Amino acid sequence: MNTKSLTLALGLVTTSMCAAQDALPSWNDTAPKKAITAFVAKVTTAGSPDFVPPAERIATFDNDGCLWSEQPMYFQAIFIFDRIKALAPQHPEWKTKEPFASVLKGDLKTALAGGEHALLEMAMATHAGTTAEEFEKIVTDWVNTAKHPKTGKLYTEMVYQPMLELLGYLRANGFKTFIVSGGGIEFMRPWTERVYGIPPEQVVGSSIKTKYELRDGKPVLARLPELNFIDDKEGKPIGINQHIGRRPLMAFGNSDGDFQMLEWTTAGEGPRFALYVHHTDAVREAAYDRDSHIGKLDRGLDEAPKRGWTVVSMKDDWKTIFPFEMKK
Amino acid sequence: MNTKSLTLALGLVTTSMCAAQDALPSWNDTAPKKAITAFVAKVTTAGSPDFVPPAERIATFDNDGCLWSEQPMYFQAIFIFDRIKALAPQHPEWKTKEPFASVLKGDLKTALAGGEHALLEMAMATHAGTTAEEFEKIVTDWVNTAKHPKTGKLYTEMVYQPMLELLGYLRANGFKTFIVSGGGIEFMRPWTERVYGIPPEQVVGSSIKTKYELRDGKPVLARLPELNFIDDKEGKPIGINQHIGRRPLMAFGNSDGDFQMLEWTTAGEGPRFALYVHHTDAVREAAYDRDSHIGKLDRGLDEAPKRGWTVVSMKDDWKTIFPFEMKK
Repeated sequence: MNTKSLTLALGLVTTSMCAAQDALPSWNDTAPKKAITAFVAKVTTAGSPDFVPPAERIATFDNDGCLWSEQPMYFQAIFIFDRIKALAPQHPEWKTKEPFASVLKGDLKTALAGGEHALLEMAMATHAGTTAEEFEKIVTDWVNTAKHPKTGKLYTEMVYQPMLELLGYLRANGFKTFIVSGGGIEFMRPWTERVYGIPPEQVVGSSIKTKYELRDGKPVLARLPELNFIDDKEGKPIGINQHIGRRPLMAFGNSDGDFQMLEWTTAGEGPRFALYVHHTDAVREAAYDRDSHIGKLDRGLDEAPKRGWTVVSMKDDWKTIFPFEMKK
Repeated sequence: MNTKSLTLALGLVTTSMCAAQDALPSWNDTAPKKAITAFVAKVTTAGSPDFVPPAERIATFDNDGCLWSEQPMYFQAIFIFDRIKALAPQHPEWKTKEPFASVLKGDLKTALAGGEHALLEMAMATHAGTTAEEFEKIVTDWVNTAKHPKTGKLYTEMVYQPMLELLGYLRANGFKTFIVSGGGIEFMRPWTERVYGIPPEQVVGSSIKTKYELRDGKPVLARLPELNFIDDKEGKPIGINQHIGRRPLMAFGNSDGDFQMLEWTTAGEGPRFALYVHHTDAVREAAYDRDSHIGKLDRGLDEAPKRGWTVVSMKDDWKTIFPFEMKK
């Protein structure tokens, strides 16, 4: 190898490590993309007054409605309904017991009429009672086979292409990317590494308690029908502190459930960045915000401009929404 | 640069990335060192039937008695006593209230006569009541100034040189190193990155609850006098599952409090490795095991040979115990 080919080889390495010229091709060249790239340039330029060492480059992402879709309802709720159907033969009492009876009749509206309490009851009934290993397999099988009711795609295909690019761009710039979601931590971990490049140890979420016990001499973690932690609203900064132990440099969300995460992030010293994904595209995805039961974004829309938080309009700022659009 | 100098340059890179010829110079060439290096070679050799991809190379370490000393008592207990003395002027009632009164009189034996309950009461009184940020500063100030009663060294100097080398050796071989300790998570995080190269997000420990609230418009995490999680015994596999979300490939401990972590680790499929540090050196450190109140190692000593776990005798297997010995 001569000097020239060495230079070329190193050049390639540098390019791939520091992100190619346009690492965010699915983003229009509008304000949000400019805000992101300007911020990243600022904190990664050695000698800049805003330089942040790689160890402190923590970026946290909500999952539902931020990295993947959450319509027509949280995908984990669909998983819960599918589990109720699968487990029904072992639970004959569900035929007459609400909210299970309505789920089995396909009447999700009635099933969800009991609100959060009903959903929690169904979550416990379907997420507990297995070992951690068994539950991982159940989730893996589901995400590998279950299809979205509208698009017919796997749920893991209903992820946002611009956010996948953003995750890769931040990692190429020395960031460590975390999920901080109200969704179940054990519901996300089996597939986040493959789909988002985010390993299980960088996933923070809601959880139920587990118990360590020996079964036939083999240790298992038994999943108990008891809440451990709700990683939503005020819970997000608490979960971040518990799992990560430092304040994020950048935080990304899409609903009022992410408000405290963005507030906590931007209250830190030095440069900080917060962004809301705003669901504005009824044609390519869905349009909802202030009055939505899922992913309500009301206070966040009012506060974002006052606080200097970036708001992405999916309709105006994203060229592509889903990866499968690109293959057409 | 010509081909020869390039080869040399790449050779250096390879050596530093894959660990130098002897990455464990403070370890005698006895069985434990051979077991460690043989295991690491096996799981990192591409094409080997035991090869494990880097993402799954998780190594977990207990802290007290495994990475740093725990004699004459847990260093965090000394921190608690120092905090009681510092906070005494704000708590005149402690002059007559046990166990605080005995601590203030310097009678630690009586203070600890109440056992775990007394220690927990003192931990709550000294670890809660601040914000997370304030507590971090208190811990940082303490580790930067408090001295070990016997050696006169900073507590962060009372770390085991062979274990520092082991941490570096594993990371050079693509492992992600975690602490999984019964100690307080927020007591460790302020200094583990500097001392062990382990960032806060890779520290798992016991914790109290926190509350997110606004004070003068600024968000804080208020530390509450309420237990959140005890990361000991059966709690260790639970903490590992909660924070890391995958089973370790290697686990290191020194007491029966680590038993379940080692059991959980070695119950995994494929190659697994477990090691106990056995405190056998009364001259250079301390000799204790089956009957000790601190770091009791009884069941572990019986079970280790049956289960194929490695036991390190500090006296026989370590050339050096503390880094400061090397500077002599």
